[in-house]
Amino acid sequence: MFTIYGVYRSRASRNIWLAEEMGVPWRHVPVIQHYRLGDWAADGAPLNTRSAEFLALNPRGQVPALDDDGLVLCESLAINLHLAKRHGGALGPADVAEDGLMTMWSLWAATGVEPHAIEVLYNLVAKPPGERDAGLAERSIAALDAPFTVLESALEGRGYLVGGRFTVADINVAEIVRYAAPAKSLFENRPAIAAWLEQCHARPAFQRMWTTRDAEPA
Amino acid sequence: MFTIYGVYRSRASRNIWLAEEMGVPWRHVPVIQHYRLGDWAADGAPLNTRSAEFLALNPRGQVPALDDDGLVLCESLAINLHLAKRHGGALGPADVAEDGLMTMWSLWAATGVEPHAIEVLYNLVAKPPGERDAGLAERSIAALDAPFTVLESALEGRGYLVGGRFTVADINVAEIVRYAAPAKSLFENRPAIAAWLEQCHARPAFQRMWTTRDAEPA
Repeated sequence: MFTIYGVYRSRASRNIWLAEEMGVPWRHVPVIQHYRLGDWAADGAPLNTRSAEFLALNPRGQVPALDDDGLVLCESLAINLHLAKRHGGALGPADVAEDGLMTMWSLWAATGVEPHAIEVLYNLVAKPPGERDAGLAERSIAALDAPFTVLESALEGRGYLVGGRFTVADINVAEIVRYAAPAKSLFENRPAIAAWLEQCHARPAFQRMWTTRDAEPA
Repeated sequence: MFTIYGVYRSRASRNIWLAEEMGVPWRHVPVIQHYRLGDWAADGAPLNTRSAEFLALNPRGQVPALDDDGLVLCESLAINLHLAKRHGGALGPADVAEDGLMTMWSLWAATGVEPHAIEVLYNLVAKPPGERDAGLAERSIAALDAPFTVLESALEGRGYLVGGRFTVADINVAEIVRYAAPAKSLFENRPAIAAWLEQCHARPAFQRMWTTRDAEPA
């Protein structure tokens, strides 16, 4: 059985969504980011990312981390690619070509989308209003125009990113694209992205993850 | 036979180094970044990243791209993980655990090291002196302190990142760490990183790549 370390309100959400999709038993250890410790103190979160016990597992001091039968991994997207290959059946690659494509989409989203999408999230909704940088939000939205056009083309007429079915590639990319959702303009003229994200979020596994996440301290 | 698209002075260097390590036949198409077209005009570079012929292959308009017997991939690190699995023997993963670790290190370097390392390179040496931002260089070096400490620990007493041997994980991480090489202070108290990078760069395959790269227009 594998263990996912990280609260739901972290990039562990990607791994928890996949775990829920796979329908295999797994364990959850809600490690919280050290800088958010105050949010959880009253609830007694047992570990944070600077706890000695967690640092012994992951010296990077970041969540999520995975322990899969003694194999310790970090990097949320790599964890998902691994879990899908080992436990995910058709959620993972059917062959080396699909493996390449799923890895490509994950790296593409991590490097070309996430740095901008996270600034959209922070500066349109997540930060307190007085700390938001409207100019940075605008530049980040502009920077997402080209990658969103690539994504729209990839999804058009296909529905999913790899192999014509829902896979770990969709989870990895959708969890990053979600950060940009407050920028409605990015989705308005891109019906394939909008429909794909809606379908991803309608999945029972995503819904289970999201419901538990919403119950966590904000 | 596979084809790597991209001039040596691009992230294609990662893929070309690996191709040289693998010792299998491969083809090279020197596609240049569109914004550098002027550097090569006199030499008649046949394609640039906005050429219709290249965009038909890779609509992202970025190098490198790979065509491996009809499978088209982009994202330099994903290309390398794929090539090593399909053609690389012991340069690639021996099992699903090594696959997870190699993917983890690649994502770790792409997200946690490269954004800072590239600013070190630009603002210490690559940009014309008048355009360098000393403050950004300094902040980027500071941001690399934590990941370099993680890398030093991982290499200490092991020599290589995965499986006790030189693999695609070393190529993917070393090509990113190389961008930070002008920041000597990052390497001074980290003997494992310094020795590892020196060993990586002493490899005949790296040397062949580097010699051809040096002969390209700067």
